[in-house]
Amino acid sequence: MSQPPRLQGLLAPVVTPFQSDMAPDAGRFVRHCRWLLDSGCAGLAIFGTNSEANSLSAAEKIALMDRLVAEGIPGDRLMPGTGACSVPEAVQMTSAALKVGAAGVLMLPPFFYKGVPDEGLFRYYSQVIEGVGDAALRVYLYHIPPVSQVPISLPLIERLVKAYPDTVVGLKDSSGDWNYSKSVIEGFAATGFDVFPASETLLLRGLRAGGKGCITATGNINPGPISRLYDNWQGPDAEALQHQVARTRELVQKYSMIPALKAIIAHFSQDPAWRPVRPPLVELPADQENELLRQLTEQGFDMPGIRGAAA
Amino acid sequence: MSQPPRLQGLLAPVVTPFQSDMAPDAGRFVRHCRWLLDSGCAGLAIFGTNSEANSLSAAEKIALMDRLVAEGIPGDRLMPGTGACSVPEAVQMTSAALKVGAAGVLMLPPFFYKGVPDEGLFRYYSQVIEGVGDAALRVYLYHIPPVSQVPISLPLIERLVKAYPDTVVGLKDSSGDWNYSKSVIEGFAATGFDVFPASETLLLRGLRAGGKGCITATGNINPGPISRLYDNWQGPDAEALQHQVARTRELVQKYSMIPALKAIIAHFSQDPAWRPVRPPLVELPADQENELLRQLTEQGFDMPGIRGAAA
Repeated sequence: MSQPPRLQGLLAPVVTPFQSDMAPDAGRFVRHCRWLLDSGCAGLAIFGTNSEANSLSAAEKIALMDRLVAEGIPGDRLMPGTGACSVPEAVQMTSAALKVGAAGVLMLPPFFYKGVPDEGLFRYYSQVIEGVGDAALRVYLYHIPPVSQVPISLPLIERLVKAYPDTVVGLKDSSGDWNYSKSVIEGFAATGFDVFPASETLLLRGLRAGGKGCITATGNINPGPISRLYDNWQGPDAEALQHQVARTRELVQKYSMIPALKAIIAHFSQDPAWRPVRPPLVELPADQENELLRQLTEQGFDMPGIRGAAA
Repeated sequence: MSQPPRLQGLLAPVVTPFQSDMAPDAGRFVRHCRWLLDSGCAGLAIFGTNSEANSLSAAEKIALMDRLVAEGIPGDRLMPGTGACSVPEAVQMTSAALKVGAAGVLMLPPFFYKGVPDEGLFRYYSQVIEGVGDAALRVYLYHIPPVSQVPISLPLIERLVKAYPDTVVGLKDSSGDWNYSKSVIEGFAATGFDVFPASETLLLRGLRAGGKGCITATGNINPGPISRLYDNWQGPDAEALQHQVARTRELVQKYSMIPALKAIIAHFSQDPAWRPVRPPLVELPADQENELLRQLTEQGFDMPGIRGAAA
């Protein structure tokens, strides 16, 4: 199969709702995905860190993905997270993503062992790519050292791009370290390697340097303004739009991100069923939630169209 | 079902051999397990850190475990690692371990998110225990902060023991921090909570304080002398035996542990098929392997009965 068009712009690492029995809530998930696309997201990075992906089994993730596509979400708007600690499980998830026509996959390195050599990480990506064995595959490397504790070094990127130039085509940078994003863009963007910082606070800076958008947690709640900044990044209002979205982001990231996003969706959609998280995460304490919502409201924050869409 | 007898003494976190196509090598695995039991191991902590457990899929692990039991290894000598990042996957592996009559399971906390609250870890263990729902279950908590980066705090142990007194019955301490082992023993051993340091260098000290043995990587290669120390810990030779096993351990742990263990087994069993490791690990470089084997031989180290047993 040939590769679908590349995703660029705002991608949301979609939060995963749970039913009262803690099973994934496919209905709410599909409705939230639809709202995100309707609100300006170019793509859906389902099964990322903010999706509690590693707290879901492979079977649960595959069922959610199949349901999305069955309900009309285009497969080529998806960039599912498919990395795992084991090669066979990463191959299984990646193959499932290709089956629904995903535009690409966002692939964590194996994250149990720490201090592993680049040679071992190269073998992992190589064995997954060759195990999947499909020319339609497009891999985005997932650099998130604050969580995975396993960084993706520049020499590793270079080696992977050289070995798999049509397959290893980008990276999400969740390091929060602009110098890293910049080095990757400077080193590889010219040859068609797409870099996505993990926060809209770096969106304008990233685009000006040669990045391709952002894959950001707060894309789940603020897709309109963030995609407006992406669409107008060369326009006269870019700095003002950047300032506005950064203000919201900076407020939300003072709290534990995943429960905070779910509390915000629950509040603005008037649907408390959005709040639960799976272990080892816990919901925001009520006082924190109240303070967060109070400050958001004070900023004039809103989620247009979310009522009924998310519920 | 009722609980099998508790395991005490030396447990080996069994290394997992791979075929040339990198699939698990069930034949060599069974033979190595048999050699370990014949050489003094009280139990087999299959699917631990040293087993590359997280580099195996659940299906691969369950197939290996079923094969062990089918080939006559008693289920009640097993303490399989069953912890996972997701509750459903931990429930699946734990249920499979109970199905073969395992004496207990060694359970990692979910290890993707870092800095998670004890409340979230309590919910994880609680949901796994209740999801399995079997009175035969015996859980040993797995404290390995250098790798998992998610420690098991004393208040968490206390809460779990109080909530599940017949189920949460012990802990493996891979912190390398004797003060932690000592605190857990002092806090909980009196009520039947079994603590196993993760190195034979702490075996005598642990037993004297009230620990129950050790679950140690080098149990894979040196089970005879380590179990001799366990059997004679109150005898006149205890200090000399402790000194001897510590000398071997200290040599081996200068190298990357898992590839070093496999190189040692390959050498002493004259079976080079033992060497491969899965990504993200890599084999020992030849110069390191040669130096390690030279120094072991100089110490008079041997693996009696391994030829033919491991091959």
